[in-house]
Amino acid sequence: MMEYPLTLKNLLMRNRQLFGKKEVVSRNLTGDFRYTYRDFYQRVCKLANVLTSLDIKKGDKVATLAWNTHRHLELYFAVPCCGAVLHTLNLRLSREHLAYIINHAEDKVIVVDEDLVPLLESIRDQISTVKHFIVLDDTGNMPYTGLEPVYSYEQSLAKAPDHYDFPDIDEWSPAAMCYTSATTGNPKGVVYTHRGLFLHAMALTNADSMGLSEKDILMPVVPMFHVNAWGTPFAAVWVGSTLIMPGKKLDPPSLCQLIEQEKVTASPGVPTIWMGIAQLLESGAQYQLSSLRALVSGGAPLPEALIRKLDKFNIPVMHAYGMTETTPLVLVSNPKSYMNSLSVEEKYRLGSRQGLLVPGLEMKVIGENGQEIPWDGKQIGELWLRGPWIAKEYYKEPETSRETFVDGWMRTGDIVNVDEEGYVLIVDRAKDLIKSGGEWISSVDLENTIMGHDAVVETAVIAIPHEKWQERPLACVVLKESEIEKVSKQDILDFLRERVAKWWIPDEIIFVNQIPKTSTGKFSKRIIREMYRNRELQQQ
Amino acid sequence: MMEYPLTLKNLLMRNRQLFGKKEVVSRNLTGDFRYTYRDFYQRVCKLANVLTSLDIKKGDKVATLAWNTHRHLELYFAVPCCGAVLHTLNLRLSREHLAYIINHAEDKVIVVDEDLVPLLESIRDQISTVKHFIVLDDTGNMPYTGLEPVYSYEQSLAKAPDHYDFPDIDEWSPAAMCYTSATTGNPKGVVYTHRGLFLHAMALTNADSMGLSEKDILMPVVPMFHVNAWGTPFAAVWVGSTLIMPGKKLDPPSLCQLIEQEKVTASPGVPTIWMGIAQLLESGAQYQLSSLRALVSGGAPLPEALIRKLDKFNIPVMHAYGMTETTPLVLVSNPKSYMNSLSVEEKYRLGSRQGLLVPGLEMKVIGENGQEIPWDGKQIGELWLRGPWIAKEYYKEPETSRETFVDGWMRTGDIVNVDEEGYVLIVDRAKDLIKSGGEWISSVDLENTIMGHDAVVETAVIAIPHEKWQERPLACVVLKESEIEKVSKQDILDFLRERVAKWWIPDEIIFVNQIPKTSTGKFSKRIIREMYRNRELQQQ
Repeated sequence: MMEYPLTLKNLLMRNRQLFGKKEVVSRNLTGDFRYTYRDFYQRVCKLANVLTSLDIKKGDKVATLAWNTHRHLELYFAVPCCGAVLHTLNLRLSREHLAYIINHAEDKVIVVDEDLVPLLESIRDQISTVKHFIVLDDTGNMPYTGLEPVYSYEQSLAKAPDHYDFPDIDEWSPAAMCYTSATTGNPKGVVYTHRGLFLHAMALTNADSMGLSEKDILMPVVPMFHVNAWGTPFAAVWVGSTLIMPGKKLDPPSLCQLIEQEKVTASPGVPTIWMGIAQLLESGAQYQLSSLRALVSGGAPLPEALIRKLDKFNIPVMHAYGMTETTPLVLVSNPKSYMNSLSVEEKYRLGSRQGLLVPGLEMKVIGENGQEIPWDGKQIGELWLRGPWIAKEYYKEPETSRETFVDGWMRTGDIVNVDEEGYVLIVDRAKDLIKSGGEWISSVDLENTIMGHDAVVETAVIAIPHEKWQERPLACVVLKESEIEKVSKQDILDFLRERVAKWWIPDEIIFVNQIPKTSTGKFSKRIIREMYRNRELQQQ
Repeated sequence: MMEYPLTLKNLLMRNRQLFGKKEVVSRNLTGDFRYTYRDFYQRVCKLANVLTSLDIKKGDKVATLAWNTHRHLELYFAVPCCGAVLHTLNLRLSREHLAYIINHAEDKVIVVDEDLVPLLESIRDQISTVKHFIVLDDTGNMPYTGLEPVYSYEQSLAKAPDHYDFPDIDEWSPAAMCYTSATTGNPKGVVYTHRGLFLHAMALTNADSMGLSEKDILMPVVPMFHVNAWGTPFAAVWVGSTLIMPGKKLDPPSLCQLIEQEKVTASPGVPTIWMGIAQLLESGAQYQLSSLRALVSGGAPLPEALIRKLDKFNIPVMHAYGMTETTPLVLVSNPKSYMNSLSVEEKYRLGSRQGLLVPGLEMKVIGENGQEIPWDGKQIGELWLRGPWIAKEYYKEPETSRETFVDGWMRTGDIVNVDEEGYVLIVDRAKDLIKSGGEWISSVDLENTIMGHDAVVETAVIAIPHEKWQERPLACVVLKESEIEKVSKQDILDFLRERVAKWWIPDEIIFVNQIPKTSTGKFSKRIIREMYRNRELQQQ
């Protein structure tokens, strides 16, 4: 067989040859913008010429600080197909972390959305490697800025030639990079090769995983700075899906309106987003959302209660699992063909599992004793992975890498059980498991159960040190506004008493206005622990 | 990203972990056999131990001379996952060619179906590299044979341990090989790497190509000695499709009965097979075939008339294209989402095109002047391909390889046009095109038109040398039995007069009882040419 490299160029060129008439719709600062892939390709070529004129060479890092828009999509292809490396900056990181990762990656160019220029200006003094700034000037007016040298994206493209010969690239070359949202210490970088992204995109189009198709109208709600919007823009361009880029407005009414307007068929995002949509619909808001074949939910466990809520409105949710280190697709929950006879209740339960390993990867689950655990749906262990789109190290972090990447495998840090059919359930992060009286309590499981209470919006459960039991659970609970003052802590405890083992009942329920979140929208248990550590110590 | 090799081991291991309950059904000499993938895996391990005990080492060739059965499927995985190379022998080759390819490949073991032992005995004296014979003894009785040393497959497996540690293999290692059915000269070998078969299997599961899924009940009618049954057994095992192996009885009633019995959803095969099924249904035979989502038709162009015939019985056909050198999947014909408004007639016409390039490959079409032709649905040129599952050479044939493999591309020898949407139509084999008075006549196009006549079963059109016009078409036509004596040559010519340009009308129609076929079931135009060359020369 030919030594044909697996690179993003193949994705771009197939789109160019076959899908010139299909559209990309982008909700920009100035309103909805719409163009064809034919125009997209022309602008990718122009952008590649602009990057070349800025002396961007193979391996150079080009960073983006941007929302999900058509311009960001152009960068997704022009940068790696030139041979450079696309570094997507998480705009929700702290300024300190943002400056850290720009310096650590040695970004040479930063391309920034117009409204995010002030954020970049605020750390300008701390970043040392950047030679050029490009502003994605949607309004047609360049903002006044102290960044320099600075260029207008649109003016630069307007002047650039619209032909570019994309080079053949070695498949092991870096194409993109992304930093994990650190819960402790500095963010850690993961480098994605062309080969990894190519194979991962193939896995997304697999009929039994996400099944991305030309027939799809795909709206990536998950940010493009969060594991490349789970790789979906790459796969969508490859197979010619219509792409709907929702921009910065990710509130439930804006998203529902856009799904209705564009007849979106599939949308990847975190459960918090889908919870917002469920609440909006429960409040009586009316949208025509029947085009949806799947909301793809990942980034955090999908509570069974949320699957039920959305099912009431005939909205199917597909549970998926992955992480920055895994490009990210690892598990997708689809029932097997012989599971058609499952009851609705059993299907909900199955849907709350993260699902089956996608083709191309390998997994094993290692128990406390270092041995693989049996797949009985009960015993727990840490999920280990290997495969062609699993990271082999953290970028320039040999020390941390040694803890996570062991014997050719990656330790996910996620504690799981696997049922006899192979459906994986993430029980907890290893560090969030609660060890009480020698037994494990899953904080995720407790959270999902509490979420089943009608009055509850969200909840986070953490371990609190305990003299006698070692650790005991504490639950922070956010009530619906209409339920505040009506529902008591005792009501929640009574609700749990019918549903979980007695020793799982949290020692304390605390009502809060919201759960602190990380820059990627996940519950920050680290912050919660810091908030309540002292309080608990006083009580003991 | 990890340097994780893309090998068939990943396919086997995923099946083992996830699909132990799913079934393989095999129509054996002794009747229908049925077992689970759990049993399949155990026997694959036993077989691997048997091969090891015969001193089969990395790179050794293990040949099969066998029908599509569960035992052949076991060989498909045990041989390459051990590190050896699976060489599938085409049992329809001439004895001379069969002996040639066994010697050329240097097969060390031949595994042979019980009823094919006499074929192998007949060439025993001509094959020099084979050290062991294994008989797939379905009846439980080893046939009396002069082959030696010879072993019973079932007895060997019964004694072998059922655990085997499959090695990690370099992805560039050979996994399988197959010889093309030679139309001239000796057959030429193509070697498939693990990487090529892995990526090709991924392409088969792509939602817009064949979309092979766990939900499928797949019946490979295309022989497993014909480009690995188009790679479908590999993909099916990977994603856990139920596999129905039809054995040696490929007559229309047997196949229809099996589709009905097992509720087959997808079946790959050549158009001749599907034509037989269409005729059976037209004759009034009743079968329940509504489980079929797609007959996948490849190996030869699918006539529009056949699509129409099958559509009358609500049987969808999916047109695909490939060749031994391309593993084989290259093109699949599926309408794009915005083509829903096409009329039924337009959809038939689209379906008769071989379709769109699957993700992962690259194509270009080179015209007579050596330049790429425009995609206008009219201009013709030769299809050139490159990609990770395209061969780079013929096995041990440097001379022939140089003609076909040029500048990193493979010349298919197929003349095509491409419409503006990217749908490729194979107009003809380069050597079958008829050049008349400076213009091209497509023999395939003429054949498809003649096939549209209700009385016609099949037809082959060839070029006959002509003094004035250079070449002129001659058509060999097979009539339905009931129409013989009723339909005249003039009727066929009149039928054509309304449908093709005047100068396309064949100079002669010859009624024949059947069209000579190659060992893979394709029309052998070489034989037809030899038959009629003299006759035409006399007429001129």
